[in-house]
Amino acid sequence: MEKEFSRIGILGGGQLAKMSAYYAFRLGLDISILEKSLNSPAGMMTKNDFEGWVNDDKIMTEFAASCDIITLESEFIDSNRLLFLEKLGKIVLPTSKTISLIQDKYIQKSVLKKANLPLPDFTEVISIDEYSNTVERLGLPFVLKSKKLGYDGYGNAVIRNESEFKESYNILIKRHNSLYAEKFVNFTKELAVLVVKNSFQTLTYPVVETIQENNICKKVIAPANIDVEIMNEAKKIAIESINAVEGHGIFAVEMFLTNDKQILINELAPRPHNSGHYTMDACVTSQFENHIRAVLDLPLGDTSLIYPYAVMINLLGKKNGKGNLENYSEVLKEPDLHLHIYAKADSRLGRKMGHITITGNDLEDILNRAEKIEKIAMI
Amino acid sequence: MEKEFSRIGILGGGQLAKMSAYYAFRLGLDISILEKSLNSPAGMMTKNDFEGWVNDDKIMTEFAASCDIITLESEFIDSNRLLFLEKLGKIVLPTSKTISLIQDKYIQKSVLKKANLPLPDFTEVISIDEYSNTVERLGLPFVLKSKKLGYDGYGNAVIRNESEFKESYNILIKRHNSLYAEKFVNFTKELAVLVVKNSFQTLTYPVVETIQENNICKKVIAPANIDVEIMNEAKKIAIESINAVEGHGIFAVEMFLTNDKQILINELAPRPHNSGHYTMDACVTSQFENHIRAVLDLPLGDTSLIYPYAVMINLLGKKNGKGNLENYSEVLKEPDLHLHIYAKADSRLGRKMGHITITGNDLEDILNRAEKIEKIAMI
Repeated sequence: MEKEFSRIGILGGGQLAKMSAYYAFRLGLDISILEKSLNSPAGMMTKNDFEGWVNDDKIMTEFAASCDIITLESEFIDSNRLLFLEKLGKIVLPTSKTISLIQDKYIQKSVLKKANLPLPDFTEVISIDEYSNTVERLGLPFVLKSKKLGYDGYGNAVIRNESEFKESYNILIKRHNSLYAEKFVNFTKELAVLVVKNSFQTLTYPVVETIQENNICKKVIAPANIDVEIMNEAKKIAIESINAVEGHGIFAVEMFLTNDKQILINELAPRPHNSGHYTMDACVTSQFENHIRAVLDLPLGDTSLIYPYAVMINLLGKKNGKGNLENYSEVLKEPDLHLHIYAKADSRLGRKMGHITITGNDLEDILNRAEKIEKIAMI
Repeated sequence: MEKEFSRIGILGGGQLAKMSAYYAFRLGLDISILEKSLNSPAGMMTKNDFEGWVNDDKIMTEFAASCDIITLESEFIDSNRLLFLEKLGKIVLPTSKTISLIQDKYIQKSVLKKANLPLPDFTEVISIDEYSNTVERLGLPFVLKSKKLGYDGYGNAVIRNESEFKESYNILIKRHNSLYAEKFVNFTKELAVLVVKNSFQTLTYPVVETIQENNICKKVIAPANIDVEIMNEAKKIAIESINAVEGHGIFAVEMFLTNDKQILINELAPRPHNSGHYTMDACVTSQFENHIRAVLDLPLGDTSLIYPYAVMINLLGKKNGKGNLENYSEVLKEPDLHLHIYAKADSRLGRKMGHITITGNDLEDILNRAEKIEKIAMI
């Protein structure tokens, strides 16, 4: 007998799609995956595994026909390609419009500024001759950024003088043909807030602290050790940011907390986010389940922490080679550790290969134990 | 590049295989499924979806070649067919020997009795002429049972007089050609304990109360409202039972608590169990993850409850038709409800189609809310 279950199409088959899929399955749903190669982390979990990418009309049409509703795991998909799916009659969430307001960071900042939200000063950089103009506007140092396709430090450069400016300009312009600059922010903490929205509810997850190493998210501590006023302010800013881009689904809002306790928005991500992986093991409802619920316009689940503290640490590739964890037995020695391995075919130095979460009453204890396990994990 | 991840083969593709698969995926592993038809609840989650059943040497050989280690979701697979896989050089857990000691309930009871474990008196019933012998041995009423293939009340009959005996004998003997009888137990509660074992660790989950309706598990309350001495005794009996059958993997031990506070073993299940579904949302490590860990001989995860109470209620089919939930929006109105739908193609009256779990501090509140939701769920 034919099954009649909603099938969620996900553009991309990486770890965010994989973890979203767990919760689609739990709810009795099915998935379709579009990815550049078959048997991606999410693609291995379904027969509806489409090989190709978003620029190919034919595969996009086949993919769209296989599913009832479409979402994504990356903001790098050209919003025009989402529009293509919408024109096929598909619901895409977040919408092509939301993505068009987020994926170009200069547009994103302009939208947030127009909504009177707090963010570092920024300005367009049209040519390599604009060093003096930029310094005049933002002071020194400032951050030169690609308008699109920047992530984990790629596409960004801190500029302290004109020669750094020229060098970075020439490198960044090869990545993407349009740049802008932001005022450099001295911050005491980086914070992140997840916002999940359907057509009738908006919820936030706890404000967390994210700790980057080499420009990549390494650790997340939930909740962030900040005053309750700052927490509430961060949540308010996060919700208003997602309203400004007409968001539907799950979104992360990354923020700086400055020395003088000001919150400034760093950037938005229109998808489940690394800063929310801890929710799978530490909150009543995971970010991934709430994303699926939001996309289907179902009532959202409780976003509360179920423990006083949670620590998430990414397992970044320590070698170039196979993507499997070599020492499960050692890693699983902590009986309350939650281990997640993404089943990527290949590991590379610094690549996100998995993560661990520990929860508890004593932040120092769980942080120490998580750090010890991260050190020994061979992947 | 070829992936090198352990692939767990599961004989059967129902809800127990499906929920086990979630945790295999979380750990970065892969699955193979053998089931009578393709796209079963678990089979839909993999390309390694084998159509056929255990009596077919050819499909069993192909299935075995596709995976590194094999487990099962039902004790009804003839242990000789597991032996067939073992002779192909595969590790099967639980082993064919363990299954041979469990799947014939008369043998199971004999093994437990030999290990001096408490259970109701029982005796073989060789022919339809043995009514008087049986009454003499067990008193009235007694329970006539199939030695094999009994579940959810199928294969059992309560006998109060000779005509009931003859009628039931003739019905049961058609199901399986060998019967036995057990003393009828007046119990105050039915309890269940999960035991998980690898080669170097044995853990138990909390003792739960199971509430049956029409011989099918309907509700589970964790922990059971019983004295701590009885709890400890139940755990001790459970561990000794699994030792007696040389268990490896996860096992459920179902027990009766009698009026005079005696514990008597009802039966063993060599697999994840309905009485442990609550562990996914209420314990540090779910029964399914610990099953996967045990099968791979990895360290086991913490089995503790993370809330004072959890209530699980099965969603049993309320109609004959499609297997999808018709009213997600209504069911998900309780924000702390955990909903699981198994994605079975067809619903039938009384069939296990999904389950819900609610956790909290106030048992009466969560039980009331869960019962209300169960009533309205249309599946």
